[in-house]
Amino acid sequence: MVQIMDVYKQSLKLHEKWAGKISTEPKCPVQSREDLSLAYTPGVAEPCRKIADNPADVYKYTQKGNTVAVISDGSAVLGLGNIGAAAAMPVMEGKAVLFKSFGNVNAVPICLDTQDTDEIVETVIRIAPAFGGINLEDISAPRCFEIEQCLNDALDIPVFHDDQHGTAIVVLSGIINGLRITGKKKEECKVVVNGAGSAGVAITKLLLTYGFKNVTMCDRNGILHKDYEGLNWMQQKMVEVTNLEGKTGSLADALIGADIFIGVSAPGIVSADMVRSMNKDSILFAMANPTPEIMPDIAKEAGARIVGTGRSDFPNQVNNVIAFPGIFKGALEGRASIITEEMKLAAAEAIASLVSDEDLCDDFIMPEAFDPRVADAVSAAVKSHIHA
Amino acid sequence: MVQIMDVYKQSLKLHEKWAGKISTEPKCPVQSREDLSLAYTPGVAEPCRKIADNPADVYKYTQKGNTVAVISDGSAVLGLGNIGAAAAMPVMEGKAVLFKSFGNVNAVPICLDTQDTDEIVETVIRIAPAFGGINLEDISAPRCFEIEQCLNDALDIPVFHDDQHGTAIVVLSGIINGLRITGKKKEECKVVVNGAGSAGVAITKLLLTYGFKNVTMCDRNGILHKDYEGLNWMQQKMVEVTNLEGKTGSLADALIGADIFIGVSAPGIVSADMVRSMNKDSILFAMANPTPEIMPDIAKEAGARIVGTGRSDFPNQVNNVIAFPGIFKGALEGRASIITEEMKLAAAEAIASLVSDEDLCDDFIMPEAFDPRVADAVSAAVKSHIHA
Repeated sequence: MVQIMDVYKQSLKLHEKWAGKISTEPKCPVQSREDLSLAYTPGVAEPCRKIADNPADVYKYTQKGNTVAVISDGSAVLGLGNIGAAAAMPVMEGKAVLFKSFGNVNAVPICLDTQDTDEIVETVIRIAPAFGGINLEDISAPRCFEIEQCLNDALDIPVFHDDQHGTAIVVLSGIINGLRITGKKKEECKVVVNGAGSAGVAITKLLLTYGFKNVTMCDRNGILHKDYEGLNWMQQKMVEVTNLEGKTGSLADALIGADIFIGVSAPGIVSADMVRSMNKDSILFAMANPTPEIMPDIAKEAGARIVGTGRSDFPNQVNNVIAFPGIFKGALEGRASIITEEMKLAAAEAIASLVSDEDLCDDFIMPEAFDPRVADAVSAAVKSHIHA
Repeated sequence: MVQIMDVYKQSLKLHEKWAGKISTEPKCPVQSREDLSLAYTPGVAEPCRKIADNPADVYKYTQKGNTVAVISDGSAVLGLGNIGAAAAMPVMEGKAVLFKSFGNVNAVPICLDTQDTDEIVETVIRIAPAFGGINLEDISAPRCFEIEQCLNDALDIPVFHDDQHGTAIVVLSGIINGLRITGKKKEECKVVVNGAGSAGVAITKLLLTYGFKNVTMCDRNGILHKDYEGLNWMQQKMVEVTNLEGKTGSLADALIGADIFIGVSAPGIVSADMVRSMNKDSILFAMANPTPEIMPDIAKEAGARIVGTGRSDFPNQVNNVIAFPGIFKGALEGRASIITEEMKLAAAEAIASLVSDEDLCDDFIMPEAFDPRVADAVSAAVKSHIHA
């Protein structure tokens, strides 16, 4: 805790020094009247005319094709909850830093002064012409599902809610490698996802698409099933395709005989006894931040084979930065109009395959965030699934 | 015309090479896990919390305080007219280049997929949290007046329609120095403004605020007066404070005995005879682009003393780049909530005063675009009129 307080203090100091972590920089010099006449009037009229004649030329003459809007309403920021648009800015700027540093993609933070679903959708549609992609960020469930769906329907550029799909892709990549280690088959694994918000739903969906058959979702009140009270519309859809045996009970009940636990929930809610009740060679992703659902050493002692968390000071960090920069790099370069399920699966497999048989072990199932191969591998995987 | 075609060709080539004239660049390095933990999670939570607790801290920890949104609906782009959002992008990116190059201000192009006045207003309000100022660009009249007014009423950050006020400030600075040369008094000058769109209206307003008494507006059908048919609501307001004698007739009629002509209208519509009918030591700003209302050599031959145009290949170029970067630099640094008339007048006077008595002459009434003193002088003038 001392350590994290120190990180907070240091981060605050640097944020004050930076006063904005990104900068909009000219790529073309403007040092003479001639420069001005080419970058601005009168010369600029010509690319304008070309685009007016052929709208697709906007990708040829402007930054649209390599620029993403990072959009949040500040309703579900990190572990901080609904802190609003302005307070979400440091996260969105951070995201823009990562987009450029890892994927060479321009990203523009847009924080919205509304949390109304329809207003968010119409606002993003209206500002879309300048952007080649939309990265939704830190928008609370279940609004995030509807917003993403509406935007994907309305826009011809890719829309991607990173809290959902970035997390899901990275978790799947870890699970793919976990199965490489344990030799278990996806069709035979019993998976428990704890947390039924944006990440939990997206992880569950992607696991099912990948081929897992037995997935059960839980939230703070236990196992989600068809007669569970108070489910939102998305959770209602999820209980149609998960927990096919119709079990009820607590998280502890769900975990008995499970092979894989995925937590996007709350600190310390998984006990050593629960881990002991799981199958041999169990895999746990305990991603509550900053304190996981169970600490890795306790989980291991209780019999877990592979443990991942959201933290960089433990092995197997689930870090979205190994997914989203490459996802958008590929989608933009390939001019994808949507990020499909195939692209997400391909991205997860590409990430997993970067860990060689020699390197693969219980404590190393995903490539490092700073592995320079990652963004290109993910980008190539995405591009290979773009159909003209 | 060969020359301009060559500029177009060269500009197109460069736009294709640049593929976007701006880039979003990280100001903070992200080369290690530690860097990541400070720029992004978990450290970034701390500035978020601070802003949630104290909204004004967004200026301390994010780029808001030095970042402007450049917003257009593409309805009145350069001389190209209503070419729409995407086709307006090269201009907005060019503007962003100038903002950074001349004022060290970050600018983000936002092109709107709507031309509905209310929708534009509500969209800009919703995306405002990330920005310290709003630069409206190339939005057609009279919608631009209402949009700017509504945004100024709704937002606590400065909103500035450059086509109006940037142009007005630079024209006024030229006129101030024109009067220094000719010795005429503003109260006694007869001014004719031809063109009753966004720039014409804003120039007229600023001249009246500055102290000119006798201003007449014309459009393509002649002198605007109270019984003129088809005036929009803003033009109706303007005929209450201009043309106090209630004259009617053509532009030619208006120019008889005039001291100053300001054209934001159409190529070649001022004849040598019209200039001859003006008073001695007449001043003409013929700003139609790329072909002025009258060519400078013809105007001079016909008796004009001072002629300015929008072109860089003639003396006295009216170039907004000597105003808007400094205007926003000052407004942002001083945390102004609005750009007032006093600030605009002060900016015009600051620009004019940069031309020394020694340098001042008929062909040099405004500082060069690349004069390094300009942005700071304008910025200081704006800041001196910010009241806490």
